[in-house]
Amino acid sequence: MPDSAHRPPIAVTMGDPAGVGPEVIARAWAARHDHGLTPFVAIGDAAAIAAVWDGPVARVSDMGDVIPAFSSALPIWHLEDSGPVTPGAPSPAGATCALHALETGIGLTRNQASTALVTGPVSKHALQSIGYTHPGQTEFIAERCGVMASNAVMMLAGPSLRVVPLTVHVPLSEVPERLTSELIISRIRVVWRGLKRDFGIAQPRIAIAGLNPHAGESGRMGDEEIRIIAPAIEQLAADGINVDGPLAADGMFAPGIRDRYDALLCTYHDQALAPFKALHFHDGVNLTLGLPIIRTSPDHGTAFDIAGSGKADPGPTIAAIRMAATLAATREHSCAPAR
Amino acid sequence: MPDSAHRPPIAVTMGDPAGVGPEVIARAWAARHDHGLTPFVAIGDAAAIAAVWDGPVARVSDMGDVIPAFSSALPIWHLEDSGPVTPGAPSPAGATCALHALETGIGLTRNQASTALVTGPVSKHALQSIGYTHPGQTEFIAERCGVMASNAVMMLAGPSLRVVPLTVHVPLSEVPERLTSELIISRIRVVWRGLKRDFGIAQPRIAIAGLNPHAGESGRMGDEEIRIIAPAIEQLAADGINVDGPLAADGMFAPGIRDRYDALLCTYHDQALAPFKALHFHDGVNLTLGLPIIRTSPDHGTAFDIAGSGKADPGPTIAAIRMAATLAATREHSCAPAR
Repeated sequence: MPDSAHRPPIAVTMGDPAGVGPEVIARAWAARHDHGLTPFVAIGDAAAIAAVWDGPVARVSDMGDVIPAFSSALPIWHLEDSGPVTPGAPSPAGATCALHALETGIGLTRNQASTALVTGPVSKHALQSIGYTHPGQTEFIAERCGVMASNAVMMLAGPSLRVVPLTVHVPLSEVPERLTSELIISRIRVVWRGLKRDFGIAQPRIAIAGLNPHAGESGRMGDEEIRIIAPAIEQLAADGINVDGPLAADGMFAPGIRDRYDALLCTYHDQALAPFKALHFHDGVNLTLGLPIIRTSPDHGTAFDIAGSGKADPGPTIAAIRMAATLAATREHSCAPAR
Repeated sequence: MPDSAHRPPIAVTMGDPAGVGPEVIARAWAARHDHGLTPFVAIGDAAAIAAVWDGPVARVSDMGDVIPAFSSALPIWHLEDSGPVTPGAPSPAGATCALHALETGIGLTRNQASTALVTGPVSKHALQSIGYTHPGQTEFIAERCGVMASNAVMMLAGPSLRVVPLTVHVPLSEVPERLTSELIISRIRVVWRGLKRDFGIAQPRIAIAGLNPHAGESGRMGDEEIRIIAPAIEQLAADGINVDGPLAADGMFAPGIRDRYDALLCTYHDQALAPFKALHFHDGVNLTLGLPIIRTSPDHGTAFDIAGSGKADPGPTIAAIRMAATLAATREHSCAPAR
């Protein structure tokens, strides 16, 4: 990996102040040496950190102050007092602060004052209570980056496996009608570019699962493989993007098969995420391909039920920060003019 | 486990003579000491073994001869010459032999001349060519055992995980309509009894996944959890069968969650099998609950493309034979009169 010393710090939003976000950031900072973390700044309400952690902090309001402070204290970009912070008890003021942190993180990263954006977990429910209408953080980030939400593609990446669900938060009964050749083609183009640009893979190896059991067995158990997936693969091949499949989803995740690919594309949420989390629950990172900025996040929610108890695992946040640094370095390298 | 010395041998059908069945049985026998395998007999065409293996065999036509022969040769219950056997090239004569082996294995096991039935992989296509109309071997076995096919429940069992798909070989688009409270209740009753009787678990811990991503998020992404799954759980609880769920399928397979349960029930094929095979590709066993006999099988197909090449992994067959022996011992114990 290229030397990171010249790169600005990473922006890490706390997410909901009453969730586990603040404590896992603090504990990631405490473990910075063990995991070789590059400097980062926690964005949100300083009181949310104070409520769950008594380590050293350094308030900053200039990104230039983050790197000098990082070795001896957790740098905090304090936004506003969001009222009393009670871990486990979300509030409208907390949701406002979470949204403000997200906006600030996006702005800093778009302006290249930060190298990458790592987003902490928010409460969809609390955000809706303050009038937020996006289904998640990703759509908001895409909008602020001038990218159509449909071109911002979720990938889950772990040490041995990367998966992309082609449809995400839709009822299972709607998956067959949502899965179109156009959707597959546009998502795979984003994944292909992301694997090249952010992961530095010159010739990405991609496989796509079938929608039906055994990938339909030549039409005997559903015909979406024949009608929708195969034509998409053909079109992509004509554009120079080779994709294997449709493969039986269960066989595709077997060790000897999954190891052959840089990314496994799945037709729906659980087809991708159930095997992924079976393998990478503690070290899986959620990241968004297709954005002008690098964005990762720990792959868990606010976990209000354990917030403040010290039980939350900082592993996913550490993995998200590490991956953000790696992706940023790779992208910088792959986008640099040829030498 | 109770002493196995008094129990008859296990009946292992070769499956399609041109598939990998014969060679994995022969290699399982060769590895009998390493894996502590109890005596078994291979049922099918002796020529199919001879075509792929040059180790010692002993033809038997009385189950009483199996145990004495087993220490120095692979016992074969030869049925008929199915013509020249060419690995990788299925034929109608081979399919007839595979079906005959299955019938013989069922008969021997039902008559308690064998302790359990392990079925080798058959070709659905080749079987259909000789007029076989059952969707798979399980339905045929159920019929011969006088059990309704819908009460014979497939389970995949590995060292750390057992899964049951509630619907199996149906197109994904039909899964929502196939999933009824009645189906869930009847299948879970079979699983509950199977865990008690065959696995010796006094109070089985069972969880069921939702159909939709995040188990529907309280109806925001599909309502089958509310309409169908929750009422089934309630009815089962009233009958003294406690089932947790519906759980988000991805979270359910995370290590800290899956470890809490003796079986994870999934609503469809890939939801169960993709994470299962990600974890237990080499040591997973397919078994059928709800039958009067013990029946297991290696969880792979005929693999005609590699048959005869020596590449086929005997691990799944070894695991299936071992599990058959364990289940038989447990069932004998749990069905014995109290002492």
